[in-house]
Amino acid sequence: MRHEHIPPAGSASRTVTRYERGRAVEDKDRLAEEIPVAIHVNGAPFAVMMASPVDLEDFARGFALTENRVGDVREIDSIEIHEVLEGITIDVRTMGAGLPAMDGDPPSHKERNIPGRSGCGICGTRELEDVIRRPRPVAAGTNVSPDAIERALEALRAEQPINAYTGSVHAAAWARADGSLVVVREDVGRHNALDKLVGAMTRRGLDPREGFAVITSRASYEMVTKAAVAGITVLVAISAPTALAVSLAADCGLTLVGFARTSRFNVYSRPERIKAIDV
Amino acid sequence: MRHEHIPPAGSASRTVTRYERGRAVEDKDRLAEEIPVAIHVNGAPFAVMMASPVDLEDFARGFALTENRVGDVREIDSIEIHEVLEGITIDVRTMGAGLPAMDGDPPSHKERNIPGRSGCGICGTRELEDVIRRPRPVAAGTNVSPDAIERALEALRAEQPINAYTGSVHAAAWARADGSLVVVREDVGRHNALDKLVGAMTRRGLDPREGFAVITSRASYEMVTKAAVAGITVLVAISAPTALAVSLAADCGLTLVGFARTSRFNVYSRPERIKAIDV
Repeated sequence: MRHEHIPPAGSASRTVTRYERGRAVEDKDRLAEEIPVAIHVNGAPFAVMMASPVDLEDFARGFALTENRVGDVREIDSIEIHEVLEGITIDVRTMGAGLPAMDGDPPSHKERNIPGRSGCGICGTRELEDVIRRPRPVAAGTNVSPDAIERALEALRAEQPINAYTGSVHAAAWARADGSLVVVREDVGRHNALDKLVGAMTRRGLDPREGFAVITSRASYEMVTKAAVAGITVLVAISAPTALAVSLAADCGLTLVGFARTSRFNVYSRPERIKAIDV
Repeated sequence: MRHEHIPPAGSASRTVTRYERGRAVEDKDRLAEEIPVAIHVNGAPFAVMMASPVDLEDFARGFALTENRVGDVREIDSIEIHEVLEGITIDVRTMGAGLPAMDGDPPSHKERNIPGRSGCGICGTRELEDVIRRPRPVAAGTNVSPDAIERALEALRAEQPINAYTGSVHAAAWARADGSLVVVREDVGRHNALDKLVGAMTRRGLDPREGFAVITSRASYEMVTKAAVAGITVLVAISAPTALAVSLAADCGLTLVGFARTSRFNVYSRPERIKAIDV
C-alpha cells in the first residue's frame, strides 16, 4: 500500500533482502539519493558536497552566505544549476569579480580559498588556526516559549516528505516565535539542510531575529557557526550538541537548545531567551 | 548518582538548563568533545577534521589508508601527535618522500592533493569527476549469519563508553564471523570512527576478510568507500544507507546491511554472504 505513494524528489528505490528472525524476504526499499554537487563561485571550482538533489538554489544561496563567500545574499548576481554526467554543478556569480572582502570577516578568512568540502565548513582549511571561525555576536532576537518549541517540533514531524519516505534524511526548519513553521528543508547532510534553510529564508526575506531554527540532527560546532553567521539567534537541535558547539554558542550569544523532545529539552547557552510559563 | 562515574576521555561537562513541561532546572550535562585535528603527511598540511580526541594514532593510520595516502599501512614510517593551542596536530611520515604512487589508484587520484576535509573523503576535490572513487572489488571474505549480526549489535551497546556518557557519538566495531566483538572505536564523526577502527584493525593485524564491521550511523557513499578501500567485505549499519552507497557496494562486491536492529535488518547488496539459518 505504501508503494502507491509518489516518491518525493531526493528519494530512490533499491532491491533489498529483508531478514527478520532469520527469514529472508525480497522487497523494494526507499532510500535517500546522494549526489555530488559542485559549487563554482565566479567561475572557479570552490567545493563539492554530497547532497540531496532538491532545493539546490536555496542550497547555493545559504552556502554562499554561511561560508562567507558573500557578506549578504544581495551580493549574489546569479545562480545557475547544471545537471552533468557525474552530478550537478551550481554556478554562483557575485557582484564584482572574485571574492569580496567582507566586513567583520577575520583577515585570515579573506585569503582562505576553500577548495572542497562536504558541507562541514572546515574543509579547505589545512591548518588548525584557520578552523575555528568566530562569528560576530548575534542580535538580541526574540524570546521563545517552551510551548512554541513544542509546537514547532510537533509540526515538523509532518513536514519532512523525503524523511517520511526514506527514514534517513535531516531537516532544518524555521519557525515563528509562536512555534508555527514557515519553511522546512531536507538533505542527507545536516549542514546542507541548514544551508538550504538559510537560503530559503533569505529568498523569502525572513528575519532571523524574529523566530527560531529547528534541526533534526546533532548540533556540532559547525552547525552553530553556520547559524550564527546567518544571524539566527535561537537554534533548537533534536539531538545532542558538542562541548565546542556550546562554547561557541555562548561566545556569540546564540541560544542553543539540545535534546529537544516534545515537552522536554535542554538549554545550553543564553537561557534568558527561553521564557518558561511557570518559572 | 550517575555523576560519580569517571568521565571518559572525549567527554566534557557543561552547565545546562533543563526544561520539562515548562519548568526549568539548572543541572550539569555530559557532552562529547569536538576538537580540530590537523593531519600533516610528510610535513605538508593535508586535512583538518573535527574529531573526538581519543585513539588518534589509530585515526591517523586508518585515515592514511582509506584516503589513499598509503597503499598499505606498512608504508607508514611514524605517527606523532602534538597538542597545540588550537587543537591537535598529527604528523604522519611515510616511507620515501611525498605521496607514493598507488597501485590500482586511478591516475586522477595520484595528483589529488586533498587540502582539507572533515572526515567525509570528498573534500579537496573541487571537480565532480574527482569525487566518485571506485575502490577495487573486495575479496570473497567470510559468510556471516543473522545470529552473528544480532550478537555483535547486542554486544556493541555495552562497549561505547563515550556514547554511554554523552549519548551523542558514533561507534565503529569489528566483529569476528561469529559475532564476537574484537575492537570498538568512537568519535563524534562517523567517518572518523570508521577510520579509527580501520587503524586499530591494521595495528592488530586483523584480517578484514575474516569478520564484519558494524557502524552505529547511516551508511553514506563515503562510508562504503572507506570500508571497501580498507578491504572490509561486510558492512553493517544501524541506520539507513543512501542510494549511492548501495550502488557503490554492489559495484565493488561489498555486502551492505542497513537498518540493523537486533533480530531484524536489510541487506542491500551481495546478500549471498548472509547465511540465514532458516532459508
